[in-house]
Amino acid sequence: MMNYSSKLLEEAVLEFAKLPGIGNKTALRLVLHLLKQEARDVENFGSVIQRLKKEIIHCKICHNISDQEICQICSNPRRDRSTVCVVENIRDVMSIENTHQYNGVYHVLGGIISPMDGIGPGDLTIQSLEEKVLSSGSEIRELILALPTTMEGDTTNFYIFRRLKNSNVRITTIARGVSVGDDLEFADEITLGRSIVNRMDFESTLKN
Amino acid sequence: MMNYSSKLLEEAVLEFAKLPGIGNKTALRLVLHLLKQEARDVENFGSVIQRLKKEIIHCKICHNISDQEICQICSNPRRDRSTVCVVENIRDVMSIENTHQYNGVYHVLGGIISPMDGIGPGDLTIQSLEEKVLSSGSEIRELILALPTTMEGDTTNFYIFRRLKNSNVRITTIARGVSVGDDLEFADEITLGRSIVNRMDFESTLKN
Repeated sequence: MMNYSSKLLEEAVLEFAKLPGIGNKTALRLVLHLLKQEARDVENFGSVIQRLKKEIIHCKICHNISDQEICQICSNPRRDRSTVCVVENIRDVMSIENTHQYNGVYHVLGGIISPMDGIGPGDLTIQSLEEKVLSSGSEIRELILALPTTMEGDTTNFYIFRRLKNSNVRITTIARGVSVGDDLEFADEITLGRSIVNRMDFESTLKN
Repeated sequence: MMNYSSKLLEEAVLEFAKLPGIGNKTALRLVLHLLKQEARDVENFGSVIQRLKKEIIHCKICHNISDQEICQICSNPRRDRSTVCVVENIRDVMSIENTHQYNGVYHVLGGIISPMDGIGPGDLTIQSLEEKVLSSGSEIRELILALPTTMEGDTTNFYIFRRLKNSNVRITTIARGVSVGDDLEFADEITLGRSIVNRMDFESTLKN
């Protein structure tokens, strides 16, 4: 353990070192960096962090992080509410939004089922998804499962599928394959295998 | 640029991304991590950062970061005030303290002379060091220069040497068991400790 010359310095370093991927030495470097900045800027940084938990809202419909009770995507009349893309977290929403290829709405699970980490269906927003899909007058016609291709992702996919397979909703998953522009020789076997099994009519790709 | 679903989220990510070595994606990961923590813990983190610049004091004698006007090292009656180790920053103080091989006091320059970065002697605490050494009744008998072995470190060493060579103070540098070019904070305790024990007269190093 380091000997810190000031309790406050030590406290600050320990706080930073709680962040994932940041050890004591990096934490110290960050704190010393802050000490060299303008007082106003550092105060502003602290105040933004203080406001984080208090002021951030999760959208009541899709559970994405939002400034309002209903997020910008869910409240946008031009988005297609009949298609719901189910993702693990808000980063996935951002990634998909960045493609500018998707015009439906989202459902953020807030994680995936992972018995090893003690995360069960009850810790996620799966029930909210079910209620949304099964509620009378629901306009949802398709759920796109876009969870990670891990055992946990597969488990979650299957759990959601089992709960909703008797509804009239079509359940799809995003296509997995070799990345656009990648050489085949650099793709891993599972991805390449899936690309072959899930091959498409060439003609259908011409229409994009 | 990412599309953030919340202004506050975006603000928080941008604040983290200002830290050295942290890009937008890492910043987002850190903010999402904070959002999963207890509100009280996140608030505490923010409040520690807010207090940083306001409450941290630099020791009047050695310029180390401190909780009091005079730091714990300078006010410790068992430390040898006749020996002053001159270091670039407070991380170096911590590194040397961790060796448990040094019983003198410190002088933290707050940087080193670096014309490329626009840092001159006036930006550092060199004048305070001179005054301390030259003041009547000064008990200082030895200055140990423990600056980095870079051109900037050498320049700073030489500058201090020239200002004080006519005083009665012995000027030494730490022995470089530490690899040339390595920062003190990354040296292991044994090597760094040995470097302090085997310090040499600065003048003798000029002859190489």
